[in-house]
Amino acid sequence: MNLNEIYAPVKNDLEKVESSLKTISDVDIFLLSELLEYVLRDGGKRIRPALTLLCGKFHDYDLKKLVPMGVAVELLHSATLVHDDVVDNSPIRRGKPSIRNAWGEASALLLGDYLFAKSACIVTDTGVLRVVKLFAETLMTISGGELAQIGIIFDKKRAREHYYDWISAKTACLFATSTESGAILSGASENEIDALKEYGHSLGMAFQVIDDVLDFVGQEAELGKPVGSDLTEGAVTLPSILYAEYHPDDNLIKNVIDGRDISDITLVVKKIIDSPVIDECLQIASEFCYKACKAIEILPDNTYRKSLYDLANYVIQRRK
Amino acid sequence: MNLNEIYAPVKNDLEKVESSLKTISDVDIFLLSELLEYVLRDGGKRIRPALTLLCGKFHDYDLKKLVPMGVAVELLHSATLVHDDVVDNSPIRRGKPSIRNAWGEASALLLGDYLFAKSACIVTDTGVLRVVKLFAETLMTISGGELAQIGIIFDKKRAREHYYDWISAKTACLFATSTESGAILSGASENEIDALKEYGHSLGMAFQVIDDVLDFVGQEAELGKPVGSDLTEGAVTLPSILYAEYHPDDNLIKNVIDGRDISDITLVVKKIIDSPVIDECLQIASEFCYKACKAIEILPDNTYRKSLYDLANYVIQRRK
Repeated sequence: MNLNEIYAPVKNDLEKVESSLKTISDVDIFLLSELLEYVLRDGGKRIRPALTLLCGKFHDYDLKKLVPMGVAVELLHSATLVHDDVVDNSPIRRGKPSIRNAWGEASALLLGDYLFAKSACIVTDTGVLRVVKLFAETLMTISGGELAQIGIIFDKKRAREHYYDWISAKTACLFATSTESGAILSGASENEIDALKEYGHSLGMAFQVIDDVLDFVGQEAELGKPVGSDLTEGAVTLPSILYAEYHPDDNLIKNVIDGRDISDITLVVKKIIDSPVIDECLQIASEFCYKACKAIEILPDNTYRKSLYDLANYVIQRRK
Repeated sequence: MNLNEIYAPVKNDLEKVESSLKTISDVDIFLLSELLEYVLRDGGKRIRPALTLLCGKFHDYDLKKLVPMGVAVELLHSATLVHDDVVDNSPIRRGKPSIRNAWGEASALLLGDYLFAKSACIVTDTGVLRVVKLFAETLMTISGGELAQIGIIFDKKRAREHYYDWISAKTACLFATSTESGAILSGASENEIDALKEYGHSLGMAFQVIDDVLDFVGQEAELGKPVGSDLTEGAVTLPSILYAEYHPDDNLIKNVIDGRDISDITLVVKKIIDSPVIDECLQIASEFCYKACKAIEILPDNTYRKSLYDLANYVIQRRK
């Protein structure tokens, strides 16, 4: 199943989110307008706003609240990508030069700040303080999580745990906020809010594990960046962690992980691809998706819950 | 009059803001805690929270709303300073190495993001959506204003206008938000809210003009950074703009402004200090302060309004 089919029950409303995103770049400041246009044009899968809309479908589906929320989670996502590319010195994003690369660090930093502020501003249009607070806490978690990652020295014994903490803050938290806010804004019960939050969190964990697998086994044209980019940028993700666990005496991976020698990255990537750790990562992602689907069993069996199940399936099967 | 005397009517409550700021660094993430401690310790004049508290004094002075708001405006201010030092490559802030300089750009960027998020989160504790939206709009204005500045080519004819737009976004906007939010949260009438907002805005304009004058005529020990830092970092402020207006044929200032030759900055600084433009800048700052005081004539003649008048006086007479 492709995303268009999965999004079908909220297709028209997702287009409202899309139109609203297009208006964001209507600003008087020329450079800002240009940067916003560049970032928000052809901008990815829109999974987060789709989640907000789908999760709002179980009760009072109020577009005056849900569309702004969908716009806001997508903008916050874009903001974190723009800042990530500064933190990681990434030259490429979605197949084109990153803002940092094309306009420099100062512009990327300020654009990210503007996007944070704009997204927070749009959340206030929901009129619901609870989601505004949730939204602000999400950005605290994301930036705090990245700072925790900077302070960490690789420790094989705690590497998996650190990795899960990291991707929980980096990705799962905003997925959870996307689903939780949809539930809150539609007036769901606390039980259902918790269920949809848990769904979003587990789905986000699966999504990021697959992202990290695709960095090894994906196609450059589909990824929009070279294979092995994570290791090149010093990011040690689940495939490398598992490989290092199983091969404690392999100095090649040790040196790459410790940042002592990155000349052999192509070889390390090949070793990891040829090993069983990729399958193990896919298995772990499947387990997260199973957990996600399990969490929403309490919801009524309807077309919206089916879309959420299908999305979980899509996430583990996707190739880009 | 010194700041302690001016702040006297809200002294105890400003200490509550201070205690609350101290708790911000109580977080589990070691690096984050260390950075927060560094930034928030001995952190400047606390003018913005003092404004919020003083402006809340004319009606229902509710500390449960005003203290969080005061904490939030101070945190937002700190966040913008941390990011500014990345944008401007500033090595020094308040007499000690900037976060960017001591911990690197990635940490400075993420710390600023965390502070933005934390401050937005704290504003939601006021329970008042109107100030949350105002707060988010303030960060849009600040980051948008800095981006506008990046895109600008120096144009003598429009330089003053651009400068006023710039400092309005950079400084006056947050001053205005500090005063306006105090008024809103205390239940002032729309007339009074407008008056206090206008006071804050004009005071902020004066404050920044004086800041830019002190960059030329201040003492390094009091400024916490070398004299002439603005020009060194490529920031063309009011003294340089006026000097260039009056000396259209002086190639030295032209070259420095265009960034072609910054070897002669000491000489340019000396020329500007010795010229009448410094007095003219002080005159302009006085006019902004006059406008600020004029705006709040409609408020009752009490100890709080007196503090606001005294603060306007302090701002133009300060030496650091």
